[in-house]
Amino acid sequence: MTSLLTQQLFSTPAMTEVFGDQARIQAMLDAEAALARAQASVGLIPEAAVASIAGACDAALYDPEALGKATAITGNPAIPLVAALTKRVAEHNPDAALWVHYGATSQDIIDTGMVLQARAGLGLISAELDRIEAALAALARDHAGTVMAGRTLLQHAVPISFGLKAASWLDSVRRARRALTAASDDLAPQLGGAVGSLAAMGAEGPRVLDAFAHDLGFAAAPPWHARRERIALLGAALAVLIGTLSKAALDLTLMMQTEAGEAFEPLVAGRGGSSAMPHKRNPVALVAVQAAERRAPGLSATLMSALQQAHERDVGGWHAEWEVLPELFALCGGATAGMAAVFEGLELDPARMRRNLDLTHGLLFAERAALALTPHMGRAEAHALVKRASEQAAREGGGLRGVLGADPTACAALAGRFDEIFDPAPTLAAVPELIRRMIGRDA
Amino acid sequence: MTSLLTQQLFSTPAMTEVFGDQARIQAMLDAEAALARAQASVGLIPEAAVASIAGACDAALYDPEALGKATAITGNPAIPLVAALTKRVAEHNPDAALWVHYGATSQDIIDTGMVLQARAGLGLISAELDRIEAALAALARDHAGTVMAGRTLLQHAVPISFGLKAASWLDSVRRARRALTAASDDLAPQLGGAVGSLAAMGAEGPRVLDAFAHDLGFAAAPPWHARRERIALLGAALAVLIGTLSKAALDLTLMMQTEAGEAFEPLVAGRGGSSAMPHKRNPVALVAVQAAERRAPGLSATLMSALQQAHERDVGGWHAEWEVLPELFALCGGATAGMAAVFEGLELDPARMRRNLDLTHGLLFAERAALALTPHMGRAEAHALVKRASEQAAREGGGLRGVLGADPTACAALAGRFDEIFDPAPTLAAVPELIRRMIGRDA
Amino acid sequence: MTSLLTQQLFSTPAMTEVFGDQARIQAMLDAEAALARAQASVGLIPEAAVASIAGACDAALYDPEALGKATAITGNPAIPLVAALTKRVAEHNPDAALWVHYGATSQDIIDTGMVLQARAGLGLISAELDRIEAALAALARDHAGTVMAGRTLLQHAVPISFGLKAASWLDSVRRARRALTAASDDLAPQLGGAVGSLAAMGAEGPRVLDAFAHDLGFAAAPPWHARRERIALLGAALAVLIGTLSKAALDLTLMMQTEAGEAFEPLVAGRGGSSAMPHKRNPVALVAVQAAERRAPGLSATLMSALQQAHERDVGGWHAEWEVLPELFALCGGATAGMAAVFEGLELDPARMRRNLDLTHGLLFAERAALALTPHMGRAEAHALVKRASEQAAREGGGLRGVLGADPTACAALAGRFDEIFDPAPTLAAVPELIRRMIGRDA
Amino acid sequence: MTSLLTQQLFSTPAMTEVFGDQARIQAMLDAEAALARAQASVGLIPEAAVASIAGACDAALYDPEALGKATAITGNPAIPLVAALTKRVAEHNPDAALWVHYGATSQDIIDTGMVLQARAGLGLISAELDRIEAALAALARDHAGTVMAGRTLLQHAVPISFGLKAASWLDSVRRARRALTAASDDLAPQLGGAVGSLAAMGAEGPRVLDAFAHDLGFAAAPPWHARRERIALLGAALAVLIGTLSKAALDLTLMMQTEAGEAFEPLVAGRGGSSAMPHKRNPVALVAVQAAERRAPGLSATLMSALQQAHERDVGGWHAEWEVLPELFALCGGATAGMAAVFEGLELDPARMRRNLDLTHGLLFAERAALALTPHMGRAEAHALVKRASEQAAREGGGLRGVLGADPTACAALAGRFDEIFDPAPTLAAVPELIRRMIGRDA
Repeated sequence: MTSLLTQQLFSTPAMTEVFGDQARIQAMLDAEAALARAQASVGLIPEAAVASIAGACDAALYDPEALGKATAITGNPAIPLVAALTKRVAEHNPDAALWVHYGATSQDIIDTGMVLQARAGLGLISAELDRIEAALAALARDHAGTVMAGRTLLQHAVPISFGLKAASWLDSVRRARRALTAASDDLAPQLGGAVGSLAAMGAEGPRVLDAFAHDLGFAAAPPWHARRERIALLGAALAVLIGTLSKAALDLTLMMQTEAGEAFEPLVAGRGGSSAMPHKRNPVALVAVQAAERRAPGLSATLMSALQQAHERDVGGWHAEWEVLPELFALCGGATAGMAAVFEGLELDPARMRRNLDLTHGLLFAERAALALTPHMGRAEAHALVKRASEQAAREGGGLRGVLGADPTACAALAGRFDEIFDPAPTLAAVPELIRRMIGRDA
Repeated sequence: MTSLLTQQLFSTPAMTEVFGDQARIQAMLDAEAALARAQASVGLIPEAAVASIAGACDAALYDPEALGKATAITGNPAIPLVAALTKRVAEHNPDAALWVHYGATSQDIIDTGMVLQARAGLGLISAELDRIEAALAALARDHAGTVMAGRTLLQHAVPISFGLKAASWLDSVRRARRALTAASDDLAPQLGGAVGSLAAMGAEGPRVLDAFAHDLGFAAAPPWHARRERIALLGAALAVLIGTLSKAALDLTLMMQTEAGEAFEPLVAGRGGSSAMPHKRNPVALVAVQAAERRAPGLSATLMSALQQAHERDVGGWHAEWEVLPELFALCGGATAGMAAVFEGLELDPARMRRNLDLTHGLLFAERAALALTPHMGRAEAHALVKRASEQAAREGGGLRGVLGADPTACAALAGRFDEIFDPAPTLAAVPELIRRMIGRDA
Repeated sequence: MTSLLTQQLFSTPAMTEVFGDQARIQAMLDAEAALARAQASVGLIPEAAVASIAGACDAALYDPEALGKATAITGNPAIPLVAALTKRVAEHNPDAALWVHYGATSQDIIDTGMVLQARAGLGLISAELDRIEAALAALARDHAGTVMAGRTLLQHAVPISFGLKAASWLDSVRRARRALTAASDDLAPQLGGAVGSLAAMGAEGPRVLDAFAHDLGFAAAPPWHARRERIALLGAALAVLIGTLSKAALDLTLMMQTEAGEAFEPLVAGRGGSSAMPHKRNPVALVAVQAAERRAPGLSATLMSALQQAHERDVGGWHAEWEVLPELFALCGGATAGMAAVFEGLELDPARMRRNLDLTHGLLFAERAALALTPHMGRAEAHALVKRASEQAAREGGGLRGVLGADPTACAALAGRFDEIFDPAPTLAAVPELIRRMIGRDA
Repeated sequence: MTSLLTQQLFSTPAMTEVFGDQARIQAMLDAEAALARAQASVGLIPEAAVASIAGACDAALYDPEALGKATAITGNPAIPLVAALTKRVAEHNPDAALWVHYGATSQDIIDTGMVLQARAGLGLISAELDRIEAALAALARDHAGTVMAGRTLLQHAVPISFGLKAASWLDSVRRARRALTAASDDLAPQLGGAVGSLAAMGAEGPRVLDAFAHDLGFAAAPPWHARRERIALLGAALAVLIGTLSKAALDLTLMMQTEAGEAFEPLVAGRGGSSAMPHKRNPVALVAVQAAERRAPGLSATLMSALQQAHERDVGGWHAEWEVLPELFALCGGATAGMAAVFEGLELDPARMRRNLDLTHGLLFAERAALALTPHMGRAEAHALVKRASEQAAREGGGLRGVLGADPTACAALAGRFDEIFDPAPTLAAVPELIRRMIGRDA
C-alpha cells in the first residue's frame, strides 16, 4: 500500500505523478477522446460529436474519490468514468453523448490508459538511464586503473580495478535496458469491444483500431484483452532493471562498510543520519534501491501468475495488474533516479582501496604464484604448495611473499620472478580491453 | 501502487483507514507517548515530561506530505517525525523536549507503529471472520442435503451436497484463522535502541521494555530489529487466508458460469454490469478476491525474502516491508469483507444443481456401478466394463443405466440393485457426519 | 525436487536428458576442452596438451554420484570435476595435465556448461514451438467461422469464432517466443578467471575469450560472473511462454467441462482415466501445463532475486540458479511439447459450441440490441431497456428477441432489424481480418 | 531440477532419501496397506485380503522408472502403482485383489504418502533443530560478554556482544520452529474417495477414516483434497525457518569477510578452496544456506498460488505441489543440518572483534556521548555537536574522545565522565538480562 510518508523514498515525484489518480483518469479519458476521433474518421460516429466528447475528457472535471467508491460497486473504474463522461457530454450536447465509448468495453479504456501511463513512465526511466550510462562510462574510464581488491564469496581474491566494476555495471544496465526497450516497443493500445472481436463496429472495426492506435502514436495491434504477455514481459524487464541496479547498490554498500571505507553515496543535506547515532553516515539511496529489489521479484511473479486468464476476460488476473504494474514503475523510477544520483556523485577513496589490498599480506597474488609454479610441478601440487604457504602466512604474519621466499622449492621455481608475481599491474593486463568492450570503443 | 480509484474494490474503507498515513503517524506517536510513560514509570525520565510529550502525540498536528518529503532525504519517516515532535514539545515545554524518543531508535518507533496498526487490522479481519464462520455454518447445515455434482478436474464425478462444500470451506477458513491468530499472538512492540541492546537506557532497559509493552497492551519481547520471522509468519498467514477464501470464490465463480447457473453472488445495486453488455450479471466481489489471490503469494514471498537481514539493521529488507505488509492487510481486509457479504447473501439454485446432475445421463453413478460389479469380476474388469458402457452411453445417449441394463454380464451381477446404484442418496451417506465434524457438533 | 515418478508428466525425456547429470557433466567438460583449444590457438598452452585434455572430456568417464558427494564438500561441482579430469589427463600425459583448466575459475566452467545446456534446451523448445505455430495457424484458418460463445468473467457475452481464439493464442505464443529468442541471442559462454579480469592469462586474455566463444559457436562477451541479467531474462521468457501456453490450456479445460463439452484434449491410450471413476475423460496434458504455470512465476522470481549478487562472486545468488534454471527448462519443455500435441490433436465439437450459444436465449445479442437502440434513446436508456428485457427473458424464458418484440418502444426503434440483430454473423464481421493479422497474410 | 551433482550441497543424504522415489512409492504403499487394514477392521473388506495386500506393499517390488513413464500417460503416479499392486496381489490371491484401493481415489494415496514423507522429513529437521538450539544457547552463554561492533546499515553503530547475537538467532529459530510444529501438528492423512465424500464406503466411511488415520498414527481429519491450507502453511513455515537460519548465515558471512575476520565456518577437509585461488578460505555451508534462502520464498509462493483449487480436485494446483513441497523439505533439511554444523564448530576471533571496535576511533560511543550531552543542551543540539565532532574525528583522526575533550562545551558538560562514556561495558548493561530471556532462565 503506497503511503505519502514513504513513496518519495522509494519512487520519485515525477513517477508517482505519472501513475497517480489524476493521471490515471486522464489517460482513460485520452483513450475515450481518441476513440471518438478514430470512429469519426472512418464515419462510424458523427464528426460533430467529437469536439463535445474530447472537450469533456479532462481529468480535472472528475472526482477520483467518487469514482473510487463507484468502482467498488461496479468492479472497474471505467464504468463510473464512462457514466460521468456521458453525463457531462450530454449536458452540453445530448446527441454527442450517444457516441461516447461507442462499441468499446471497459477493458479497452483501462488497458489503453495503462499503456499511455506506461509510455510516460518509460520516458522518465529512459532519461535516468541516460544519466546512469553517462556516469558509469565516465567512472569506468576514469578508474580503469584504480586498483582494488576483487572479492569472491566476500573474500579478497585477486586485484581488479574500480573501472572494471563500473564498466561491468554499465554492461548489465544496458542489457536490461534493451529488454525494457523491446517490451516497450511491443506496447499497443487496447481496442476490441466486449469480447475482442470489435463486434459492435462491424466491418469497420479494424479501420477504427488502426485510426485509434495511430491517434495515440502507436502501431495497431489486435485486441489482447486476456493475453497479457506484453504486461508480464514489461514487468519482468522492469524487475530485471531494478535487480541490475541493485547489484551495483549492494557492491557500493559493501564498499561503504566501516571496515572497507572505499566508497560513499553522495552526501545529501540531512541524509544518512540516525535518530540514535549522530556520527553515522548511512547509505540511504542505496538502501532504497535494495528495498526495491526485494519487492520486484514478487511483483513480477504476480504479473506472470496473471497470464493465466480465462477466455475473453478473466476473473481476477487482469484486475491483479491494476496496482502491481504501477508499483513496479514506481520502484523502477525510484531505483533509476536514485542510482543516477549515486553514480553521478559517488565519492571514492582510491587510497583506501589500495591499502585494503594489503590486508591479506600478499594473498591476493596467490593465484599468480600458483600459476607460475604450475609448469614446474603440476596444478595440484602448485595449489597445495601455495595453500600451505598462504596458511602459514595467515598464521604467522609476514606475508605470502616472505613465506614463499623461504621455501626452497618455490624459490627454485620462481627465482627472479617474485617482483613480477607480487605486482598488481600484470593482473590488470586485460582490463583496459574489457572496459573498452563494455563502454564501447568510442565512448 | 494504491489508488483511490481501485483501493475500495480490493480493500475496505475501514482497513485503508487503519493503514492510511494518518493512522500510520498516529501509531508511531502512540509508540513515542508509551515510551515516555514507560521511561517515567521507572524513573529514567522526569514524570513532568510525560504530559507534554503525550500531548503532542496527535497525528492531526503533523503533515504527512511534509514528512514524506523529509523521509525521502532521511531514509525513514521516524527521523522527521521525531524532529517535528521534539520541536512541538519544545515550544510548550523545553525541558520535556530533552526526553522525547529518549534512547530509542527510528526502528523502535516504526516497528511498534506497524504492530499497533497490525493489531487494529487483525481486529477488523477477525470481525469479518466471525461473519464468515456463521454464514458458512448456516449454509452447511441448511444445504447438507442439497445434491449437486461433485467435480474433479472440472468434470462431473460423483454427487455431493452443497452443504459439504460449505462445511469444507469453513474448515479451511478456521485453520487459516488459527494460523493468523498464532501469528497475531506473537506480535510484540519493538524497543531496542540503536542496536537492540537497550544500551542507552543502562540496566533499566529491560524494565522500560516491560513497561512499554505493558502500556501498549502486549507482553514484552526482546528487541527483534533484524529478525523478522514474526512479520513473515504474519504475512504468510494473511496470504493463506486470502488463498483459502479465494478457493471458495473460484468454486462459486465456476458455479455462476452461464453453463452452470447454480450460484450467484448477491445482487448489489449497480454491480455486475458491463459497459458493453447490458444483460450480464458478472461476479464482482468474487473477482476482487481472486485478484487478491494473485497478489498475495508475491507479497508474502517478499516478506520471506526480507528475512535475510544483515546484522543489527538491514540495508533494504526492513524497508521492503513498509508498503508490503499494509498491502497484504488491505487485500485481506477486502477479501474477508467481500466473502462475508457473499456467503451471507449467496443466491443458490438447488433445482439447477439437481438438473445439472443429469447432464451426464447417469455417469455420475459410474463409480458406484463399478464398485458393485467389483466383487463379481475384479476391479480391473469392472472398471473396464463400466468404462465401455459409459462411452457407449455418451456416444449413443440413453444413459449409463440403460446401457448397463442391456448388458447381460452387468445385469446378471447387478440384478435388482439398479435403483439403489442410480440413487444419489447413498453417495451422500457419510456427508452428514463429515459436515458435523467440520462445523462442530453443537454448531 | 525432481522425481523419476513425476518428471515425465511435467517435462519430456529429451529435456530431462539435456539437463540430466550426464549432460551437465559433459557440458562442463565441453567447456574445458574448448578452453584448452582456445588457449593453444593463441599460444598460451602447448598444442600438444589439447588432444589429451579433449580426449578425457567425456562424461562417461566420471561418476555423478561421486562428484555430487565431493561437491557437498567443495561447494561447487567444477572443483571435483577438474580434479578428476586433471588426474585422468595426468595418467596419459602428465605434461598436458599442467594445462587443464588453465587460468579459469569454477564459475567459468559451470556457467559455460549451463549455457551449452540452455542452448540445447532452447533447440528443443523451438522445435515444439514450430509445431505449435503450425497447428494454431491451421486451427485459426479452419475455424475462422466456427461460432462459439465469447465469455467474459466466465459469463456468455457476445459470439466469437474458435478461429479467433486460436489466432489469439498464436499471436501470444509468437510474442513470447520473440522474447525467448532475444534472451537466447544474448547468451554467451563465461570466461573470466578468478575475478572476471582474465588475470591469469595476461594480455592474451581477450584473445582467449574470443577463441573460446568462437569454438563453442557463440560471440564472445565480457565476463558476467556476478551479473546475471541474462539468466533472469531467460528465466522470465521461459516463464512467460509457459504462462502464455497455460492461458490456452485454461480456455480448453473450461471448454472441456462437462457443462460445456466444446473441446477435448486428444485421446491417448490409457490417459484421462480416474482410479475411482471409470467414466471420466479427464484433461491430463492440459493439467500438467497448468501445474507448470503455478510454478513458473516463483522460479522466475528466484532468478530475479538472484540478481542481487555481491562483488565478483556472490554468496548464494549464483548457487540458487543451479537447480532453478534447469527446472524452468524442464517445465517449459513439457509445456511446449504437451500443448503441441494438444493443438495438433485437438477434438472440437462445433455443433455443441453452436448449441451452447442458445443457452442464454438470445442474451448474447444484447450488446447488439443495445447499440441498435442507442441512436434512438441514448446509451444509458438503451442499456437500461435491454437490461430489463434481459432480466425478464431470463426470468420468464422465451428469449430476449421475444421480450423485445413485445416491447413497443423497442419494436418502434428496431422494426425490421430483428433478424439482423439476432444473427451471429454480423458480430463476426471483423474476425477474418483480425485472424489474418494474427496468423500473417500469407499463412 | 534436482541433480545428483548438487543435491548433497543443498540438502542431506537423509532428507533426499526421505523424499526419494523409493520412499515416495513406499509411502503410497503404506497408505494402501493402512487402508486395507482400516477397511477390514470395520468389516468393509474381508480380513483375509489384508495380509495379501499388505504383503505386496513393498516399494522394492516396483520400478520407479516404469511407474514414471506410466504417470506421464495417466496423469498421476497412483494410477499405475495401484494397477501394479493389484496385479501383484492377484498373482497370489485373486480374491484379495478385488479389495485393493477399495473406495479410494488417487489423491487419497498420493496425499497420504506425501504426509508420511513430510512427517519423516520433519523428524530430521527436528533433530537438527535440537542441535542448533543447544549450540546457540551455548554460544549465547559463553559469549555474553564478548564485545563486538553492533552494525546497522553495515556501519558500526554501538557495541554489542556476540552472545546477544547468538541468543537473538536462537530466539528467532525457536519462533520459526513453533510455527513449523503447529503446521506439522495439523497434518492428517487424506481419505475421501472420488469427491471427498467417502461415497464408496457408505455410512461406514467415517469409521474407515478414523481407523485409517489411527493406523498411520494421526488423528483423523475430514477429506481435504482441494483445500490445501495445511500444505501452504507447512511450506511457509519451512521457508521462514530457512530464512531465519539464513539471517544468521548472512551475519556470519559478513563477519567472515577479509576485512572483518571475526568468525569462520568450521574447517572441513577439502572445503572452502577455490579452483583458481589456493589461498582462499571460502564460506561453503553458509553459502548453501543463503542459496536456499533465495529459493524458499518462490517455492512457498507457489504453494500459496496452489491454494486456488477448483471444486473437488483442481486442474493443476494440486499437481504443482508434487515437486515443490519436497524441494522445500530438501532445502530446509540442508539448511538445518548445515547451520547445526556451523554453530557447533564455529570459529570465533574475539580479539579481532575487539580490535575492529577501534576502527572508528571512538565513534561507536557517539550515541552515549550524545545522550550524556542531551540533558545539558537538548537532543537536537547534542546530536549536532557530536555529529560535528565525529566528522572532525573521521577527517583528522585522533578519535571522538580527543575531539570532544578539546571542545569547551562538551568538556563542561561531560567533565569527569569521559572514561565512563568511552567504556563499552555500560553499553552492555542490559545484555545479560536480554540473553537470559532469550535462552531461557534455566538454559
